[in-house]
Amino acid sequence: MPALAGKTYLNYGGQGPLPDPSLDAMVASWRTIQELGPFSTAVWPFIDRELSRLRGLLASRCGVRPSRVAFTENVTSGCVLPLWGLPWEPGDTILISDAEHPGVVAACHELASREGLHITSLPVTRWRGGLDEQADTDQQVLGALEEALTANTRLVVLSHLLWNTGQVMPIAAVAERLAEHPRQPWLLVDAAQSMGSLPVAAAASQSDIYAFTGHKWCCGPEGLGAVVLSERLLSQARPTLIGWRSLRDEQAANEGFHEDGRRFEVATSCTPLFSGLRTSLELLDSQGACDERSRRIQQLSGQLWQALARTDGLQPLLSGPPPAGLVSFRVEGREPPAVARRLGEQGIWLRHLDHPSCLRACTHITTTQEDLDRLLSALTAML
Amino acid sequence: MPALAGKTYLNYGGQGPLPDPSLDAMVASWRTIQELGPFSTAVWPFIDRELSRLRGLLASRCGVRPSRVAFTENVTSGCVLPLWGLPWEPGDTILISDAEHPGVVAACHELASREGLHITSLPVTRWRGGLDEQADTDQQVLGALEEALTANTRLVVLSHLLWNTGQVMPIAAVAERLAEHPRQPWLLVDAAQSMGSLPVAAAASQSDIYAFTGHKWCCGPEGLGAVVLSERLLSQARPTLIGWRSLRDEQAANEGFHEDGRRFEVATSCTPLFSGLRTSLELLDSQGACDERSRRIQQLSGQLWQALARTDGLQPLLSGPPPAGLVSFRVEGREPPAVARRLGEQGIWLRHLDHPSCLRACTHITTTQEDLDRLLSALTAML
Repeated sequence: MPALAGKTYLNYGGQGPLPDPSLDAMVASWRTIQELGPFSTAVWPFIDRELSRLRGLLASRCGVRPSRVAFTENVTSGCVLPLWGLPWEPGDTILISDAEHPGVVAACHELASREGLHITSLPVTRWRGGLDEQADTDQQVLGALEEALTANTRLVVLSHLLWNTGQVMPIAAVAERLAEHPRQPWLLVDAAQSMGSLPVAAAASQSDIYAFTGHKWCCGPEGLGAVVLSERLLSQARPTLIGWRSLRDEQAANEGFHEDGRRFEVATSCTPLFSGLRTSLELLDSQGACDERSRRIQQLSGQLWQALARTDGLQPLLSGPPPAGLVSFRVEGREPPAVARRLGEQGIWLRHLDHPSCLRACTHITTTQEDLDRLLSALTAML
Repeated sequence: MPALAGKTYLNYGGQGPLPDPSLDAMVASWRTIQELGPFSTAVWPFIDRELSRLRGLLASRCGVRPSRVAFTENVTSGCVLPLWGLPWEPGDTILISDAEHPGVVAACHELASREGLHITSLPVTRWRGGLDEQADTDQQVLGALEEALTANTRLVVLSHLLWNTGQVMPIAAVAERLAEHPRQPWLLVDAAQSMGSLPVAAAASQSDIYAFTGHKWCCGPEGLGAVVLSERLLSQARPTLIGWRSLRDEQAANEGFHEDGRRFEVATSCTPLFSGLRTSLELLDSQGACDERSRRIQQLSGQLWQALARTDGLQPLLSGPPPAGLVSFRVEGREPPAVARRLGEQGIWLRHLDHPSCLRACTHITTTQEDLDRLLSALTAML
């Protein structure tokens, strides 16, 4: 993978490396489309098959029927688009965790200001227990949820794997709690960091909106994601960004919308990206089952966490090894952006975050011992 | 171009052929991103430059400042997305031509039902004068507009080049008329068929929303389009599908939105597609200036129209040669879908349309005499 050659790449949570076979698959897909005729009855079966195969693969990973999957351009579109067609009532409250991505937060604020909704905050960034204290974290999050829920809560927004601290949220338990609430609030889950790094079926199948992208932990091309929608959301939400793919009959504006995930798809997307993402997912599977890969990611992040924790001046955010592949930390006396820049100059790629201010390194199954050693010695040299 | 090899391809209005150098440019772009590190400070300058170069190219074709261009995934998104953030008032009326694409029509109906708007129809499909009677067509359209406008008209939706009859609409004159209306209705122009086949600067610069895709007449990859927005629309419309690209500070949800076209961009797109579309546009330019190419397209469509018009049993929709590259026609006594299927079996690709029921062949600068001869002899053989 060219993305990993000649550098220490630890930014999987930003974008994963694209394997050469996935790029080859996209080129082959483009050639097939061109050779068949890009807009011809000869090409539709090929395009339909590419979409169906990927829809099926993603649905099976998410433990849902393919009809619950809608393709999107990116994770934000998947999170936000379904919200605009829900039957809001003025005074409804959106409960957003304090660890959500700014795009989703800004979209919720815009929605709230137009629909007369309130927004309240669910504090989750504060819990720092890590893998070994997952049961405590689950209880802490459910406790915070209990305190934050009101009679008007209509939507809860919570990431599966928090992009800042790297903690895993108990999505299935949250979904069960919300089902008992008189309003049965919708559950929107940003799965940008979980899809491809954790087993997701329990969370995805119980959320109303479970949105992810293919270009991070799944190592697919940028520009293609998907969202898993609950049956109730599919029947309650009107499509907003409407195009021929949303329409039951693509030549008729008045025949209604698809009743499955396609009602939230819009118009022409880039078919070759579907071939690329499918190839990347198959390559990941060839490296072991999802839970095996997840354990490998944990081993590597745990190893990095241990090394950080035992070095004076390096301060991991979590009090124990991380539950997944995100390892956030600080370097004593150094501003995170300056550290990220210094590391970048040495070909070591990770990112800094603002809330909380820290650095974040990611480990994937492609991470090597040498990657971790190079990062650690570069960090140690700064102390 | 593989899309044109071994077949008679006349479906440019559905999707254009992708030149090999454009595919090569996309592969090179992917390799560059991977080699620099897909999420790294090393790659941002490359990505910024690719976006800026394409934004500049499109802005210059459209006769506007680059800040008025927003990138989209497809033409429908560009048409529809800005509508959801406009300051509608209940009772406002949307005037939609009867030649618009079903996706845009369905989106307007959904918007109307949510915002309490009315929808009325602007009849334009009926005018069939063709190139030589453009001045009459302009007067007919402006007359129909005059009849259809009311005090409540707030938006007019009209394609620049009608996808069904192939007639050109007098967009600049319509914009001027709307500017005199007390409500100054917004003008939404579907430019799916005009961008890349006609000079568009006068229309694009005077519309509020001028939306197009790169994968039809521009011969770029599928999955990338853009929309030109007026200064007033940029200040009046709130973004709806919000992500990090809409935000002034991508790490801060509360710092407001970009004030230029980026306020309608969302999140991660596929950067290599930008390299592909730029290459296709440069290749088109290498074949002559835009107005020369447009005249070449007219010559070819005129030639096809002449041949159809002089053959008993073949009935072009227009009463004279087409003003652009769309040639719609009927075959006496034959259902259009059956004709399209028969032609497809012979490797001749065009499409049928439902409203009005007809066949549509497209001529681009890559169309050859042999393409036209093959189509005509296949059609004649059916009579």
